[in-house]
Amino acid sequence: MSATFVVGTGISPFDRAPSTRSADQVAHAVRAALDDAAVSLDQIDAVYVGNAAGGLLTGQEMIRGQVLLRGLDLGGTPIVNCENACASGSTALYLADTALRAGRAGTVLVVGAEKMASEDKQRPMTALATAVDQERLEEETPEIRGDGSLFMDIYAQLARDYLTDHDARPEDFAALVVKNRRHASHNPVAQFTAPLTVEEVLNARLINDPLTLPMCSPIGNGAAAVVLTTEPSPAATPVRLLASSLVSGRGRHAEPAVTHAARLAFSQADVSPDDVDLAEVHDATAPAELIALEELGLLAPGEGVFAVRKGRLSVGGDLPTNPSGGLVCKGHPVGATGVAQVVEVADQLRGRAGGRQVEGARIGVTENAGGWLGGDVAAAAVHILGR
Amino acid sequence: MSATFVVGTGISPFDRAPSTRSADQVAHAVRAALDDAAVSLDQIDAVYVGNAAGGLLTGQEMIRGQVLLRGLDLGGTPIVNCENACASGSTALYLADTALRAGRAGTVLVVGAEKMASEDKQRPMTALATAVDQERLEEETPEIRGDGSLFMDIYAQLARDYLTDHDARPEDFAALVVKNRRHASHNPVAQFTAPLTVEEVLNARLINDPLTLPMCSPIGNGAAAVVLTTEPSPAATPVRLLASSLVSGRGRHAEPAVTHAARLAFSQADVSPDDVDLAEVHDATAPAELIALEELGLLAPGEGVFAVRKGRLSVGGDLPTNPSGGLVCKGHPVGATGVAQVVEVADQLRGRAGGRQVEGARIGVTENAGGWLGGDVAAAAVHILGR
Repeated sequence: MSATFVVGTGISPFDRAPSTRSADQVAHAVRAALDDAAVSLDQIDAVYVGNAAGGLLTGQEMIRGQVLLRGLDLGGTPIVNCENACASGSTALYLADTALRAGRAGTVLVVGAEKMASEDKQRPMTALATAVDQERLEEETPEIRGDGSLFMDIYAQLARDYLTDHDARPEDFAALVVKNRRHASHNPVAQFTAPLTVEEVLNARLINDPLTLPMCSPIGNGAAAVVLTTEPSPAATPVRLLASSLVSGRGRHAEPAVTHAARLAFSQADVSPDDVDLAEVHDATAPAELIALEELGLLAPGEGVFAVRKGRLSVGGDLPTNPSGGLVCKGHPVGATGVAQVVEVADQLRGRAGGRQVEGARIGVTENAGGWLGGDVAAAAVHILGR
Repeated sequence: MSATFVVGTGISPFDRAPSTRSADQVAHAVRAALDDAAVSLDQIDAVYVGNAAGGLLTGQEMIRGQVLLRGLDLGGTPIVNCENACASGSTALYLADTALRAGRAGTVLVVGAEKMASEDKQRPMTALATAVDQERLEEETPEIRGDGSLFMDIYAQLARDYLTDHDARPEDFAALVVKNRRHASHNPVAQFTAPLTVEEVLNARLINDPLTLPMCSPIGNGAAAVVLTTEPSPAATPVRLLASSLVSGRGRHAEPAVTHAARLAFSQADVSPDDVDLAEVHDATAPAELIALEELGLLAPGEGVFAVRKGRLSVGGDLPTNPSGGLVCKGHPVGATGVAQVVEVADQLRGRAGGRQVEGARIGVTENAGGWLGGDVAAAAVHILGR
């Protein structure tokens, strides 16, 4: 089986303007990734595109990738459009890695993109709510509805459970936002970069107790791209994709999907959670960062609250998490997120992360999860990168 | 690289009732395919689901496969949702074959499904029209609009071109419908099975000249499933998947997408078009059957019209095409079609096709294409099966 390398990364600024064209963001990210890889379009054997809800968000379904990539001369190269709610981008990565390992392609492009901002403010809320079984909405969702999206209600319930189970305080969740704003302030593509205090986060508009507005990932637009290859040029600084795992829903033995995906990935990579130097995790809300780290096995259950209090999750700590700013501060254009996480980790491992650089990082993990089905995420993906 | 075998097939009846539940059709097809393969759900390593426009057709986007497969106990098995307009089902097959060739899975399930029928008759028309770039509708579509869908207008233009270029007559297209109705009359899942005469086809309601209603594939619901494996049991009658190719849009040297995909597939399978015993092709309208056969290289340009006049394309002829009834008569629930074509060919190669059996068939081809972009299909896939 061939080894897969990340040889190029590109990302658009994440924004929330209704006028942004997704195809422009994609072209920006793709050109940056190709330039970085020193690869031309005619060297690309296949393109894997992750997009979560373009049909409902923009009205373009069916051939999303072909339309997004139209400005580039791909000359018949196969384009695969995939969708797995908030894990769409990681699903594209998983498929691309699979194609390389099959020998079906030598060099591939992976694109994640979402255009969410709309003049119609309700449109993204309605579209995102389809990440739940539409025939069983009542039984799947919490009874206490807040002033936000369906998913914020689900995450609020998870946050309340975390507070109860682990003697945590809303201040701990606010501290995560403060930390991620600091990280994002060094990330030129991030959506929210202004510093915030714990008090400001706690006093902001309540979305659904205990979540306040700055604890929730925003609506946004963005695109990210990576070039993967089995044959990096000698001149490149390649990063190795050590593992790519995808699971759907809770496992047969009640194991959470993220834990299941992590177990598969650590086994595939032949590294241990102790070897991890940094993580980009799916903090669709601030508390989810702690839940993800614990489900990944990077922290013990309940350890997250102490980790944030001690500053362990900051750049400079021993488990720097979401150096990009994470979903809450960098932004969460749904289909782009999984690819953007790999862009961040690959850039970190190559020492290109500027003011948010994790010094000496050699092993990084991404965790991307989406949808909600029967009490767990409908799709969870873990990628491990190393140099 | 491992060899891929089709060891189980299943298909639901194709219908057009607005009340049909897609999940029920999927469960029917999946259970039949698993039974046929003598494989249990816990032996399935991954599921690849093709669906073209669920977001706009049914409101369920983001996690379509997870919702469609909810009634089955998949226990964390990865589900990949893919979309490529009318080639969605074939894209799922392509991904599944890739996963097997990568050694990432040993046995996989492929599902194609679409629920199109709606109480709102305009809804499927609107959804299907998104298989064209929504920002460039004007330049992409023919000026003369008929009394049907956008795609029937595109196909009508192709049919008019064919009449002009090859001295064909509308009677030839009608003869294809008569032939495919006869095939469909032996297919218990087909949507239209009543016999028609050439005169009846020609005198039916005109959709867009020269296409009359029976020449156009209908709105419908359906699901198809196959089990693919690298390790068939000794007791099974496996069919080998000799090639799987996917391309997007016209190639760099102006080669039609279908021709490009066929060239790749015949090379991969190491068989010649002369070796082909039967074909299932994407006749979204009757004339498209001839265009597909010619673009595939199974007939020379313009030879199609003589082939239909001589009965060569009927079961019993030397190039039996669409023995299932094809899209026009069996039906075309968009995301199901590519998988349904492979179900038909695999059943034919195993001698299980009843009254429509192609005697002694050893090599079969499927061609599935979808979307419209810059004057060619946005995705084209060719699969070659052999025993």
